[in-house]
Amino acid sequence: MNLKSKIREIPDFPTKGINFKDITTLLKEKDAFRFVTKEIVSEFKEKHISKVLGIESRGFIIGGALANELNAGFVPVRKKGKLPAEKISETYQLEYGMDTIEMHKDALSEDDVVLIHDDLLATGGTANAVYNMVKRAGVKSVYFSFICDLEFIQTPQKNVILNLNPHILVKY
Amino acid sequence: MNLKSKIREIPDFPTKGINFKDITTLLKEKDAFRFVTKEIVSEFKEKHISKVLGIESRGFIIGGALANELNAGFVPVRKKGKLPAEKISETYQLEYGMDTIEMHKDALSEDDVVLIHDDLLATGGTANAVYNMVKRAGVKSVYFSFICDLEFIQTPQKNVILNLNPHILVKY
Repeated sequence: MNLKSKIREIPDFPTKGINFKDITTLLKEKDAFRFVTKEIVSEFKEKHISKVLGIESRGFIIGGALANELNAGFVPVRKKGKLPAEKISETYQLEYGMDTIEMHKDALSEDDVVLIHDDLLATGGTANAVYNMVKRAGVKSVYFSFICDLEFIQTPQKNVILNLNPHILVKY
Repeated sequence: MNLKSKIREIPDFPTKGINFKDITTLLKEKDAFRFVTKEIVSEFKEKHISKVLGIESRGFIIGGALANELNAGFVPVRKKGKLPAEKISETYQLEYGMDTIEMHKDALSEDDVVLIHDDLLATGGTANAVYNMVKRAGVKSVYFSFICDLEFIQTPQKNVILNLNPHILVKY
C-alpha cells in the first residue's frame, strides 16, 4: 500500500514553513489503519514485547492497537501535569525553550521488553527523552516504531534513535 | 474480571474533592487491556461500525484498538487548535467557563456507523458535544462506549447520552 498517498500534507501548520504530515486521512481509512498495524505487528511479533509506550497524543492511537495485537500492556507517555500518580520525568531542549515528558514510576519494570511508538520522527528530541526515561527505569530491551520519518531533519539526538534501528513505514 | 480493582483512585486530583479514576494501572496489564477491548468488541461486532471516534486523549488508546478489531477507520476528536485541516467544532459549557472540541470536516460521511469512545463518562458535557457534532455531520447511526461512568453525577446533557444506551464497563 502506498501510505504516502494516504497522508495529507498541510503547508504552514502549525507555523509558517512547516509542511505538516496529517495522518488523520490515513487513520480514517480502515484498510490503511489495519495495514499500518499489521506491518508493525509483523515486525515485532517475535520480540516478546511486554509494554507498548505511546507518546501523547497521536502515538496513543496506533499504540493502543499495537498493545492489543502484541498482547502487551500499554503505557502512556504524557506531557507535564497530566498523569496523577508518582512520576519520572525528562526535560529536553526544543528549538526555542524546553519541554518535559512524564511516565508513571510504576509503569515499567526492569525485565519489560518495550516498544516505543509515535506517529512522527522529526528532530528526535521527544523520542530521545523517552528513551532516556525508559533506560533510567532500568529497562534493557527497547524498540522503536514510527509511521513517518522526516529524513531531511538531522540532529545528534535523532542519530541516537536511528542507531537503534527503529521501524519506520514512510520516509520524507 | 474485576476491572474496578485494576483502576487506581487518586484523591484530590486534578483539584481538591475530585477522586480521580486512573486507568493507567488497567492499561499497563496486558490481560486487563485485552479484556476491555474484547468486551467492547463483542458488544459492537454485529453493528457494522465504520468509524471509531476517540476523544482526546485517553479515548485514543482503547479507541485505536477498537478501530483495528472492528475493522473500522479511526477519527480523533481533539481540543481546539490541534487539527490542521478544515474542521467542524462544538463549544460547550463547563462548570466554570467553556470548552471547544473539533473534528475534521472530511472525517465522516452520512452513511457512516459511528462508535464514540472515551474512558470516562462524568458530566456528559464532552460526550454530548461530540454527539451534536456527529449529528451535524449527518450521521444517523451513533453508538457510545465508556470504560467508567460516575453514576453519582447527573446532568441533563448526561441524560441525553444515557438515553442512547451507552455501553459501560465499570460504574462508580
